[in-house]
Amino acid sequence: MRFEVIPLGTGAALPAQGRSPSAQVVRREESLYLVDCGEGTQERLRMAGLNFMRIGHVFISHLHGDHYFGLMGLLSTMHLLGRTRELHVHGPPALKPIIDMQLQASATWLRYPLHVHPLVDDAPHEVLVDPHLTVTSLPLRHRLPTTGFLFRERPGPRRLRAERIADIPHYLRTAVKNGDDLLREDGTVIPNAELTFDPLPPRAYAYCSDTAHHPQLVDWVRAVDLLYHEATFTRHLAARARETMHSTAAEAAVIARDAGVGALLLGHFSSRYKDPTPLLMEALEVFPRVALSEEGRSYPIGRSIVDNSFGP
Amino acid sequence: MRFEVIPLGTGAALPAQGRSPSAQVVRREESLYLVDCGEGTQERLRMAGLNFMRIGHVFISHLHGDHYFGLMGLLSTMHLLGRTRELHVHGPPALKPIIDMQLQASATWLRYPLHVHPLVDDAPHEVLVDPHLTVTSLPLRHRLPTTGFLFRERPGPRRLRAERIADIPHYLRTAVKNGDDLLREDGTVIPNAELTFDPLPPRAYAYCSDTAHHPQLVDWVRAVDLLYHEATFTRHLAARARETMHSTAAEAAVIARDAGVGALLLGHFSSRYKDPTPLLMEALEVFPRVALSEEGRSYPIGRSIVDNSFGP
Repeated sequence: MRFEVIPLGTGAALPAQGRSPSAQVVRREESLYLVDCGEGTQERLRMAGLNFMRIGHVFISHLHGDHYFGLMGLLSTMHLLGRTRELHVHGPPALKPIIDMQLQASATWLRYPLHVHPLVDDAPHEVLVDPHLTVTSLPLRHRLPTTGFLFRERPGPRRLRAERIADIPHYLRTAVKNGDDLLREDGTVIPNAELTFDPLPPRAYAYCSDTAHHPQLVDWVRAVDLLYHEATFTRHLAARARETMHSTAAEAAVIARDAGVGALLLGHFSSRYKDPTPLLMEALEVFPRVALSEEGRSYPIGRSIVDNSFGP
Repeated sequence: MRFEVIPLGTGAALPAQGRSPSAQVVRREESLYLVDCGEGTQERLRMAGLNFMRIGHVFISHLHGDHYFGLMGLLSTMHLLGRTRELHVHGPPALKPIIDMQLQASATWLRYPLHVHPLVDDAPHEVLVDPHLTVTSLPLRHRLPTTGFLFRERPGPRRLRAERIADIPHYLRTAVKNGDDLLREDGTVIPNAELTFDPLPPRAYAYCSDTAHHPQLVDWVRAVDLLYHEATFTRHLAARARETMHSTAAEAAVIARDAGVGALLLGHFSSRYKDPTPLLMEALEVFPRVALSEEGRSYPIGRSIVDNSFGP
């Protein structure tokens, strides 16, 4: 089951150094979820070969322009390409009137149903449950109401033991996968545990941008397989980070370490870092499995994660 | 005196074929004027090596997204780069609340004065007179209130005849350039015409996008040195052009021919034309001095215009 994240923009507010503003795609099999949508996201989706008609949900963390100025263009292009499937956008309450006013100004009646859901940032809230994933909003600490997003697979079925499959009639396999014991025709019972393995552990990914250092996150992202955390500055600019309510790379790594995550992906690099390697080096002092996010690259979430991408 | 236009986006509403949405820069010496501002314009300004802090005025033709979705990002970047010089944006009346709502949502207080001027589309109106140019809005015929823009140099001074300069005391030269006769110390008068040539003729450029075929334009753009006119479709799609209130390449050329312009620049090509050459060929049947606009290329306005860029 493919489950991965593809960063499309790794820059901070000021576009520079060839980096784009925030956007990333979470892919779970053929379903795409878009997280943030800075200017030019539609173009970068195309460059990454991602069919954005497969996006069913868009999550906007907050209303600084580098996180959403590409949204109207994407909505408009989906319309022009003849989308009919409904689209859900989750964002701060002020997002809906911004979308509505611009649709009205262009006299555009979208061909597809668009549902804009307001996010509440007082506590974590489950904002989506679909057949594959749950998505939970996480309050972040920033200059505007801001939420991160936690993507967690829904538990899968128990897995049949290959050597026992022949013992289970076809019509009972779904029941056994769901945990039932097997009642045989002779009246004997085979306990489920003899027939199956536990389900694969659900994998989880958390997106935390933008935020000041926020220790409460530790409980919310505990043991996720992959944590994306903003790292706008190095610790030499800790004062600037506090002033602008961003994090240093060391602070991001502290969250990763304390939460015991599988791996940490850094992003939202300030334009002052032509080469973001100092951010990586700083995080590695605190936590071993770190990577700098690269635009257009795929990062697996979960079991295959500890590869060459992460760690020293 | 440099006077040129640099198209930054030559595509229509649907981004495709590597073409960007509408935007162009009119440059007159060191002053930049931005006309339309589709998504990604700030990036293409940078790619073209244009210092967009030199932009004093932005003109938005209408509120279809492919003509203005890059504006908020540009305003925001100017702010982040520390701009303090005032900026003027001219656009449809509905533009100001769209800008205000988004600035408010991000709690952004721009560091520079931003003046948003509503355009009226009932008739041509002079919307800017600066030391170098006048800019006049031209009502176009489109699905939304839409205006084109006519840039015309202000008349320059009369030019002193080189062989007579020595006859004119320094302190009287400005007066002579302004048309005064020369009163000599002995009481005789030298008529101005013996001392000067006429000023260079003011050059003019007109931007007409988006619009259905609009013969009234002929009077308004008569004899301009360069006319940019949209050419979304070939005549095979004339019905589609009428339905969407766009022009065919032949219709654009008819306006150019009837107005007796110096040269015609085509743009706003539908995404269906991977190669826009058929649009050029169609226009050339009607009018000889035509070019397809290319993104990032400079097109001189006026005397030097009949070069290899134009004509068969």
